[in-house]
Amino acid sequence: MSESTLDGPPYTEIDYTSADGIATITLRRPDRLNAFTTTMATELIDAFNVADADDAVRVVLVTGAGRGFCAGADLGGGAATFDAEENGRASQTPLGTVDGVPRDGGGTVSLRIAEMRKPVIGAINGPAVGVGVTMTLPMDIRIAAEEARFGFVFARRGIIPEAASSWFLPRVVGISQAMEWVATGRVFDAAEALAGGLVSRVVPADELLPVAREIAGEIVTNTSAISVGVARQLLWSMLGSPTPWDAHRYDSKAMVELGAGADAAEGVTAFLEKRAARFPMRLSADYPAAIPRWPARPSDW
Amino acid sequence: MSESTLDGPPYTEIDYTSADGIATITLRRPDRLNAFTTTMATELIDAFNVADADDAVRVVLVTGAGRGFCAGADLGGGAATFDAEENGRASQTPLGTVDGVPRDGGGTVSLRIAEMRKPVIGAINGPAVGVGVTMTLPMDIRIAAEEARFGFVFARRGIIPEAASSWFLPRVVGISQAMEWVATGRVFDAAEALAGGLVSRVVPADELLPVAREIAGEIVTNTSAISVGVARQLLWSMLGSPTPWDAHRYDSKAMVELGAGADAAEGVTAFLEKRAARFPMRLSADYPAAIPRWPARPSDW
Amino acid sequence: MSESTLDGPPYTEIDYTSADGIATITLRRPDRLNAFTTTMATELIDAFNVADADDAVRVVLVTGAGRGFCAGADLGGGAATFDAEENGRASQTPLGTVDGVPRDGGGTVSLRIAEMRKPVIGAINGPAVGVGVTMTLPMDIRIAAEEARFGFVFARRGIIPEAASSWFLPRVVGISQAMEWVATGRVFDAAEALAGGLVSRVVPADELLPVAREIAGEIVTNTSAISVGVARQLLWSMLGSPTPWDAHRYDSKAMVELGAGADAAEGVTAFLEKRAARFPMRLSADYPAAIPRWPARPSDW
Repeated sequence: MSESTLDGPPYTEIDYTSADGIATITLRRPDRLNAFTTTMATELIDAFNVADADDAVRVVLVTGAGRGFCAGADLGGGAATFDAEENGRASQTPLGTVDGVPRDGGGTVSLRIAEMRKPVIGAINGPAVGVGVTMTLPMDIRIAAEEARFGFVFARRGIIPEAASSWFLPRVVGISQAMEWVATGRVFDAAEALAGGLVSRVVPADELLPVAREIAGEIVTNTSAISVGVARQLLWSMLGSPTPWDAHRYDSKAMVELGAGADAAEGVTAFLEKRAARFPMRLSADYPAAIPRWPARPSDW
Repeated sequence: MSESTLDGPPYTEIDYTSADGIATITLRRPDRLNAFTTTMATELIDAFNVADADDAVRVVLVTGAGRGFCAGADLGGGAATFDAEENGRASQTPLGTVDGVPRDGGGTVSLRIAEMRKPVIGAINGPAVGVGVTMTLPMDIRIAAEEARFGFVFARRGIIPEAASSWFLPRVVGISQAMEWVATGRVFDAAEALAGGLVSRVVPADELLPVAREIAGEIVTNTSAISVGVARQLLWSMLGSPTPWDAHRYDSKAMVELGAGADAAEGVTAFLEKRAARFPMRLSADYPAAIPRWPARPSDW
Repeated sequence: MSESTLDGPPYTEIDYTSADGIATITLRRPDRLNAFTTTMATELIDAFNVADADDAVRVVLVTGAGRGFCAGADLGGGAATFDAEENGRASQTPLGTVDGVPRDGGGTVSLRIAEMRKPVIGAINGPAVGVGVTMTLPMDIRIAAEEARFGFVFARRGIIPEAASSWFLPRVVGISQAMEWVATGRVFDAAEALAGGLVSRVVPADELLPVAREIAGEIVTNTSAISVGVARQLLWSMLGSPTPWDAHRYDSKAMVELGAGADAAEGVTAFLEKRAARFPMRLSADYPAAIPRWPARPSDW
């Protein structure tokens, strides 16, 4: 992995590189264990925008530089770290407002990830604490190095789990495990994260990125970008739907539209010819109008 | 298991037999690994209608004939398999329409299963791929033979996970596991299905139906059809409810109605007398008016 | 543990004691395996009210006296046990009514637990059957002694899973495991409960309360009562929310309010000074107005 930003804007707190269908976003404040800042939030959102718009990118991989993944909010501001008046967020609100207050910074990143039409893989190389772990919850797959540590430590700092994690966390690990981690604020190791369903694999540090790229490669090599994009939006958004009839309605429309598309013709033909498929459709141009992007920003936002 | 259809209509692509309180539906196109067709969808819906209406049936068991469970949509139509104009579905729509398009065939089966008031057990004897696996998601229990294989392969064919699986799959296996299987389109074995929560048991092939019948027998022998029917509707429908107060409202009404019923009197008496209960109520006649059937077909359907 | 009620009202079917930040509620009808009655429901609701209002209580622990946890509804009424006309519930309705019928008793307890702003730990020491297990579902953490037994036996008695368990159970253990336990009505051991995700730990009987108190102690020692209270309400209520944007809206408001609060200042300062935090805010006085209490009692209740 190069230090240079090959494909994205010249970011200051992250790297963005793209190769072989995989965009890699690296949190890069290694002297602070990649602690989260408003600048980092802004750059992450921009990087996800870039990755979502680039048809050469099929999968996004997020990891951390140095020995940490993300140590949480940078507490360099001391006691006033989370005080919006004191830290300037009340007046500057670079991430926008909702109902007259500054938007929670972690949430701006999490919701941008939720809106992605491309799978996002978290490769958690070291400590992932506070927003460092909550920002990974809208990712599709999380794997960890043996050295990784996790903590929903908010209750130990007098604040709350943010980044919309009250919505995401119980859906990822179940309400009982979520409540135990959130109520204790405990820092726990990779084995506990695996047992609790927060990550799907734990591997030695030097295998972390190779394994993440191998999973990403399965997607890049074998699948239609349109199919994966629509499926990602449907699966996540249907988590909040009261009835499977909503899904059936979308399925019926999508199957008519995509079933007549070039990717379906190629997918079936390639299968019958026992060869790799070469899907022609592009996510940027061919995303079906019938399928909503989720989460839709509320109209009063 | 007999080849002959003992209790159901003379189907052409499935078998339907009934004995000992268990209706067994067998997908039977063994030379095509029981690949799914519109005819099979129509026959499955009819068979579930028959099973739901027959008070002698307490549990439905679904399996496949030969070495496959269901290999997915029959791709015999080649490149145009999923094209509604080309394959005639646009004009013939034997399964009905929604918003002017033909209903997704897998979804017509899945939603019929969701509406059942009797538990459905999937005994997955071999490959269950595409609609072959998504149709099992609204079933209550899935067990597999060691030889079973699974694949949410839609993204490898240029289409999307159908059969309302964007609603069901994350609720059955969790969103992270769901996204990994859907985004990669990977075909995986029974051990991975077990580890990921898609099936609850993996057994040798010759034990598959005996184990499925043993679980079914626990239900047939010990329980009230009314109790199980109401519970099935409540548990599934409450997955989409915003608040447990909805459940409390239904519980309160159902407890008054069923608490005064003959099954409750018999259930308590039998327990106190340490004997098997013989429940007199019938699902066809005695299902409580206060409990909705789910999913209710939308009014604009 | 003392038999005497130290801090709560003089209950007749439960004990309530409080020490070291932990309120312990003990079901106490040991000659009936602590079978559930309307009196017990009323006393439990009162005890949870007491615990919720007392700032000295940070965590509630629930267990059973003697060899049982709770054997379910007391069937001493025989065949008419669940008949509201026969057992007097139709006219007396001590727990209130909904839509003209008496509220389900288990549900009155479960929903009171759901409304708690303090974590609740179930220490299941023996048989937990019927309402004995469904009342534990809105608790945050469940651990069990090796001798514990569980059963969602409603279908064997001719009634239904109550206590709003159709909402809670699938969210705690997943819909497939929930349906298997509910449809069979099977009584199962602690190992099956652990494998199925109903409890998070199984320990020898003499370690049950010490382990429960150790988990509670992690919360008491390390966390802000306000943080835990808000987090508990957000995590549970967001289980029913259609979109993470709702969570983001609450997060943003709560982070502004709590970020400027005394607990956040102390939490960050203590962390930077590498010392234990001493949080000054009180749940009774300082709960943020922006965060709803959940589940809100319906307006027509």
